[in-house]
Amino acid sequence: MRTETILLNPERNVSLTVYLQPVGGEYGRIERRPAALVIPGGGYHFCSDREAEPVALAYLKAGYQAFVLRYSLDAQAAWPHPLDDYEQAMGMIRDNAEEWHVAADRIAVIGFSAGGHLAACAATMSKNRPNAAILGYPVIDGVCARDYLPSAPDVIAHVDGNTCPCFVFATRTDNLVPVSNTIHMVNALCENDVAFESHIYSNGKHGLSTGDASIEGDVFSERYPRWVEDSLSWLADVLGGITPGGLTDPRFGAKINGNREEKLNLDCTIAHLMKSAPARKVLDEFLPGWDKGTPGAAAGVIRLRDGLTYRGLDAKTVADIEAALNAIDNPDSAARG
Amino acid sequence: MRTETILLNPERNVSLTVYLQPVGGEYGRIERRPAALVIPGGGYHFCSDREAEPVALAYLKAGYQAFVLRYSLDAQAAWPHPLDDYEQAMGMIRDNAEEWHVAADRIAVIGFSAGGHLAACAATMSKNRPNAAILGYPVIDGVCARDYLPSAPDVIAHVDGNTCPCFVFATRTDNLVPVSNTIHMVNALCENDVAFESHIYSNGKHGLSTGDASIEGDVFSERYPRWVEDSLSWLADVLGGITPGGLTDPRFGAKINGNREEKLNLDCTIAHLMKSAPARKVLDEFLPGWDKGTPGAAAGVIRLRDGLTYRGLDAKTVADIEAALNAIDNPDSAARG
Amino acid sequence: MRTETILLNPERNVSLTVYLQPVGGEYGRIERRPAALVIPGGGYHFCSDREAEPVALAYLKAGYQAFVLRYSLDAQAAWPHPLDDYEQAMGMIRDNAEEWHVAADRIAVIGFSAGGHLAACAATMSKNRPNAAILGYPVIDGVCARDYLPSAPDVIAHVDGNTCPCFVFATRTDNLVPVSNTIHMVNALCENDVAFESHIYSNGKHGLSTGDASIEGDVFSERYPRWVEDSLSWLADVLGGITPGGLTDPRFGAKINGNREEKLNLDCTIAHLMKSAPARKVLDEFLPGWDKGTPGAAAGVIRLRDGLTYRGLDAKTVADIEAALNAIDNPDSAARG
Amino acid sequence: MRTETILLNPERNVSLTVYLQPVGGEYGRIERRPAALVIPGGGYHFCSDREAEPVALAYLKAGYQAFVLRYSLDAQAAWPHPLDDYEQAMGMIRDNAEEWHVAADRIAVIGFSAGGHLAACAATMSKNRPNAAILGYPVIDGVCARDYLPSAPDVIAHVDGNTCPCFVFATRTDNLVPVSNTIHMVNALCENDVAFESHIYSNGKHGLSTGDASIEGDVFSERYPRWVEDSLSWLADVLGGITPGGLTDPRFGAKINGNREEKLNLDCTIAHLMKSAPARKVLDEFLPGWDKGTPGAAAGVIRLRDGLTYRGLDAKTVADIEAALNAIDNPDSAARG
Repeated sequence: MRTETILLNPERNVSLTVYLQPVGGEYGRIERRPAALVIPGGGYHFCSDREAEPVALAYLKAGYQAFVLRYSLDAQAAWPHPLDDYEQAMGMIRDNAEEWHVAADRIAVIGFSAGGHLAACAATMSKNRPNAAILGYPVIDGVCARDYLPSAPDVIAHVDGNTCPCFVFATRTDNLVPVSNTIHMVNALCENDVAFESHIYSNGKHGLSTGDASIEGDVFSERYPRWVEDSLSWLADVLGGITPGGLTDPRFGAKINGNREEKLNLDCTIAHLMKSAPARKVLDEFLPGWDKGTPGAAAGVIRLRDGLTYRGLDAKTVADIEAALNAIDNPDSAARG
Repeated sequence: MRTETILLNPERNVSLTVYLQPVGGEYGRIERRPAALVIPGGGYHFCSDREAEPVALAYLKAGYQAFVLRYSLDAQAAWPHPLDDYEQAMGMIRDNAEEWHVAADRIAVIGFSAGGHLAACAATMSKNRPNAAILGYPVIDGVCARDYLPSAPDVIAHVDGNTCPCFVFATRTDNLVPVSNTIHMVNALCENDVAFESHIYSNGKHGLSTGDASIEGDVFSERYPRWVEDSLSWLADVLGGITPGGLTDPRFGAKINGNREEKLNLDCTIAHLMKSAPARKVLDEFLPGWDKGTPGAAAGVIRLRDGLTYRGLDAKTVADIEAALNAIDNPDSAARG
Repeated sequence: MRTETILLNPERNVSLTVYLQPVGGEYGRIERRPAALVIPGGGYHFCSDREAEPVALAYLKAGYQAFVLRYSLDAQAAWPHPLDDYEQAMGMIRDNAEEWHVAADRIAVIGFSAGGHLAACAATMSKNRPNAAILGYPVIDGVCARDYLPSAPDVIAHVDGNTCPCFVFATRTDNLVPVSNTIHMVNALCENDVAFESHIYSNGKHGLSTGDASIEGDVFSERYPRWVEDSLSWLADVLGGITPGGLTDPRFGAKINGNREEKLNLDCTIAHLMKSAPARKVLDEFLPGWDKGTPGAAAGVIRLRDGLTYRGLDAKTVADIEAALNAIDNPDSAARG
Repeated sequence: MRTETILLNPERNVSLTVYLQPVGGEYGRIERRPAALVIPGGGYHFCSDREAEPVALAYLKAGYQAFVLRYSLDAQAAWPHPLDDYEQAMGMIRDNAEEWHVAADRIAVIGFSAGGHLAACAATMSKNRPNAAILGYPVIDGVCARDYLPSAPDVIAHVDGNTCPCFVFATRTDNLVPVSNTIHMVNALCENDVAFESHIYSNGKHGLSTGDASIEGDVFSERYPRWVEDSLSWLADVLGGITPGGLTDPRFGAKINGNREEKLNLDCTIAHLMKSAPARKVLDEFLPGWDKGTPGAAAGVIRLRDGLTYRGLDAKTVADIEAALNAIDNPDSAARG
């Protein structure tokens, strides 16, 4: 393994520590590895060592290349400096993807507390987006973020259809960053059709990091430390896994439905299509009564494709419907978001 | 094990199936067992067998007494008939607690889908409250509930400081009951200072029950089936565990803070006390500047007791503060809720 | 679930308790379930309740039909009475397989301590063999067995190529039945080419059963309770699993190699074939030097089939070799054992 | 983390790669870490990369300092060169324990295949003994060892009361190193009163290392990869754990009984004491009939101390018995072994 700390910005004392595992040889067809960019917390006043290397080790063990970003703090942290630091780090990782044996389209950010705020900003506002974000007891709400960094933006306002898939976890009894930050983030992801997973453990104070053996063991729910393996399992779902034959395709799509695509499509929900007059016209013609019989709330989650399956339509009719929908602009397109 | 199905209401075909394990003998000091009252789903149109006995078995294996409630359906389900059925079942369990070897203050309801709606109503509206509620991909929002049962109430409006601790889980891609039901429930629990745990798994359709081997294995996240053991671990946190020496005390309190007690107290959050003029007066006197230095959002989660710890107050002063606060009525008392 | 205790032998107070789950309906294509026949321990002096129903519940939860055998004890236990009791129980289960929805070729015995002795006897000596055996801290050696039942047979002497696959577990610090019983059993299974899995946990006294929450928690290794889920995972390997599409085929063969088949074959190990003059003749002709180049000890575990793969033989030659070997009697055939 | 490869012996190309984590600071009272010395396999012909750094990462993640030894191979491997390499490496780790923040009395060796042979030799023959040994599908028997290295010693002959606690695992279908090596090792450990844990998984070929995602996933039992966390859990049992308050004491003693101490004692088994005429004399006097009533085989595992507990002897009598036994030389003392 090669480890090195690269100074990204001497004025602001920003650095990227790289942990690179070999490929090839006995690792067979694994030529590039997925990567984890760890962003420790510390209220934009320090970068917690406990949320840095121990986290990197967990992803290294799972076969990832790992990186730790130490970003601008205190006086140097006036926004958007921390986000600029992230952009620089992610840019460097992707620029060096070949030499560093990184799969450039399988890079997750993993941030905690204030670092979770920065990771969430990366997921929602950055130019150089991560492919997935893991947010640990993150600062999300503007009112909370500004407690630590007056210029810090509110994350919720930036969640949209372009936000990458997110895994968000926290403890319900967090005694520093209210768990409502996590709930609000999850709610915004849901409302914007973003893929996510969320775990809120009942008991545990702020800053538990991996919850490993060196952390106070008697004051948090024993389920807490599972977020580590659960996040790895989730990453395999959304980014794909590591196998002896190389990297595998994601198990599930990164998109929950087609409601944010540029054009209407079969993966739009029934409720989404019902809002579009041109779509109604197409569907009324091919499939009279298509919008009946689905419970109201369920129409918001059932995709037309699944609805068609029940009706036993022939393949040509389905293709015709698809073509007709694909000709209609989607007013909620993320591209226009 | 004794199993029996008791007809609770012949007109409405309501029944309670009991699964009772022995105590005493080789089970030593276990004289009463905690209990699980399982409420299967089915859109108030049927009661799913998949969400009944297999769930009971999971809790039986963990040492619980188990019960399955089959409640009023379809034409018989006009509200509050299903809730009445619950009241009758819970009343019977508590009335027979001695004979059935049930710890009457350690009874959880476990409901799925529409059964999750009924379990959530039990947690928020019933006279004979459960001690904890486990809600699986529940119907919560009134608009969603009415799709299945026009007279069904909205749950959110009834969440208050008297709601029992809840464990809420769902899949993000639920294709029938939108996951927003779960998020709204979690948000309401948070806003009302109720203890909870929540797991939203990224992928999986509606109705996965325990996610055990007999359920479609290739279409949901492998983390999903963990809700079963996680719910048991959580119940041990909030209700206490089963050990050879008998039942143990809960590991964590059922209350997140003291903000819903009848009188103000040391476990109120700083933000809660700041809202009370009499409390401010007490604290300004004993502890000038007590309301300074805590980040704004954090004041909503830091309890005064923890804040005092940092200041190194002597025990007598703490006791005096406590006495003074205890003399002040709490405007947000759950008892008045 | 239907539970019932059937008296098998009133004179000897032998009974079979049945726990039967439904099939069909929402359980779809699961028409028959695998089964677990639990045999509790107690030194042939009593049948431990702790090793009976709690064990049955673990297998019920996993989708099995479950049975508990209470067998002849003390004065009634003169050998072969307990084994006769087993034969009667297993006969009844197989005779009722259709009505009880049992997959008659997927029945495991699970015995503990003295019940492990009886289960091991079932695996090695019975007429009505189980399809797999799970042996928990079993009594195996004759010298140990006779401490509890003077007429009890030594198990080791009866292990042969017809013994069913076994899962054997114990604690290294067992303070009643020496762990050497388990080691000797594993060694005998190995020497007789029987499939097995074995887990010896470092610490824990005798009689821990499932190691669940109601058992003394501070005196055994935390790994101990995993034998339950590990045994279920192993059963899925050797008997096949339960899925929504019905029962699946075993993942691995029940045989380690072909050394106990009636005729020689491609799955015999190289060392086994080297002992046979006719086999040597066949192989020297087709594949000069076939017995060279394999490390001596490895020849005892490398099957000819795998060895051929390395040599890139064409399919016809492989078929010819197979036919020639199949014409040769296997001196170690289990059928003659 | 500091990583470095130190050349131990240029002529034989022997090296020690060190992976050192920080202590102090946010790691609080953790001033020294336990350590893992990884010894990869490769038939004494190469050192497998798959059994080197990925294994080190698993122990690093758990808070250990990690080391990889690449030892003498092929022509350079004439015995005792590999063992000398081990001695040099372990000596260097202990000599640098302070600078490297290693708890010198909590160092485990972890070897695989031929590296498992070398680790087992370290556990049984070395001057600078490890505190625990983890042996993965090890080469143990002389006949097997000599297949790979003609001068390699048989391990079994060297197992005695001084052997350190061992965790031994393998797959039953190992296709290169017969699983009988593992069984023979476990048997020898048992016969010499050495503490151990053992896991033999039913299916899997040779050389699976950690069984992680980059290893062929469809050809081994899903239980196999658990050896990693199980070995960590076992190490916490025998070496002690890592907590925020520092390293904790071992949960269980490293000794199974007192049968190998220099003097007889209360932790000797009843059978052991029965073999000693002076011990019989002491016990017959204090406790007539002490050797009666215990089943024969059980006498080999019940320690006198536990037997006394049942009899309710007063503390003075117990102390007198202890003093009298402590005056008697133990013929099976490991010190004389």
